[in-house]
Amino acid sequence: MPSPLVFWYEFASTYSYLSAMRIGAAATRAGVPIVWRPFLLGPIFAAQGWNTSPFNIYPAKGRYMIRDMQRLCAARDLSFRMPEQFPANGLKAARMAQVGVREGWVDRFTRGVYAAQFGAGRNIADDAVLAAVAHDLGLDFMQLSAEAEHPDNKAELRRSTEEAQRLGIFGAPTFQTADGELFWGDDRLDQALGWSSGL
Amino acid sequence: MPSPLVFWYEFASTYSYLSAMRIGAAATRAGVPIVWRPFLLGPIFAAQGWNTSPFNIYPAKGRYMIRDMQRLCAARDLSFRMPEQFPANGLKAARMAQVGVREGWVDRFTRGVYAAQFGAGRNIADDAVLAAVAHDLGLDFMQLSAEAEHPDNKAELRRSTEEAQRLGIFGAPTFQTADGELFWGDDRLDQALGWSSGL
Repeated sequence: MPSPLVFWYEFASTYSYLSAMRIGAAATRAGVPIVWRPFLLGPIFAAQGWNTSPFNIYPAKGRYMIRDMQRLCAARDLSFRMPEQFPANGLKAARMAQVGVREGWVDRFTRGVYAAQFGAGRNIADDAVLAAVAHDLGLDFMQLSAEAEHPDNKAELRRSTEEAQRLGIFGAPTFQTADGELFWGDDRLDQALGWSSGL
Repeated sequence: MPSPLVFWYEFASTYSYLSAMRIGAAATRAGVPIVWRPFLLGPIFAAQGWNTSPFNIYPAKGRYMIRDMQRLCAARDLSFRMPEQFPANGLKAARMAQVGVREGWVDRFTRGVYAAQFGAGRNIADDAVLAAVAHDLGLDFMQLSAEAEHPDNKAELRRSTEEAQRLGIFGAPTFQTADGELFWGDDRLDQALGWSSGL
């Protein structure tokens, strides 16, 4: 019987976009349930002395990432447009996704946010962008905002980030199996699903 | 008609080991000629402020890399043993490989050095280890050492490293296609071969 695979993702991560858009179908084929867990890389990066994305700190790596994403998205028939603001401040989006974890729509909300950000190049720190995503899911944006900013919800996201750090997660996406293996990067999604389906 | 693919590698790179051990067979299947180009990541890392491997600078990433290598090597039936000294000083090995580029045995020498280092955990800065690799290929180690340390050969390796840096290479392995695409990481080898076979 396959065991669940935890999908740890950060909204500002381009490679998490790749995984978010395909993990649903891939997991269904593998018969592996997915647990969607938004978290924040900012505090984890800060702990290793970075104040922005490594793609900004190391320009050659940043230029490569964009070309790599263009090629991969073209091969997968996926839109790709880098937002002007990178990395975006994904805090509010992550808090909203955390509400979705409890309410059962985290996967659809997450795909919507990624499509807006990396498919259409929009800034997900902008309330209007998040409101459009919420609207597409039939969610009340004002009510969702209030739930997202509730102290308990904020604390829950903070605990997720602390848990990720404790697990040794240093980048996104990371896939965590029920027996404690970590697989880092969209490149490892199939391997992680294969591992989980054998547990 | 497929065009050649340049395989840029650094001896201290664990993921280059993965590619070196499979690129020959994979390239033959794809009908793509491979150009083996040893270079040094040290000067490139130094230019971005690193004085050792990022796997040492960022311990969580280093621990992950070892587990990732263990899993990948197990799946590929490849020995894996981390050497005590990591990263090894691969300067002399790279200079010898540079001789092999001219003399036509660079692929076999490179696989021998990687098998000694990451298959058997030996220190490739040690002359005895390089001598054993040379001996297995029927090369005279004393003569090879002299050719490797010749100023022209040293300058050639230095120029390769400068060329890699100019191309925007920031890690190894990197695969460079005839039309100037770069693909970084063993994960991209199949994609790079596919790209080259379509040129």
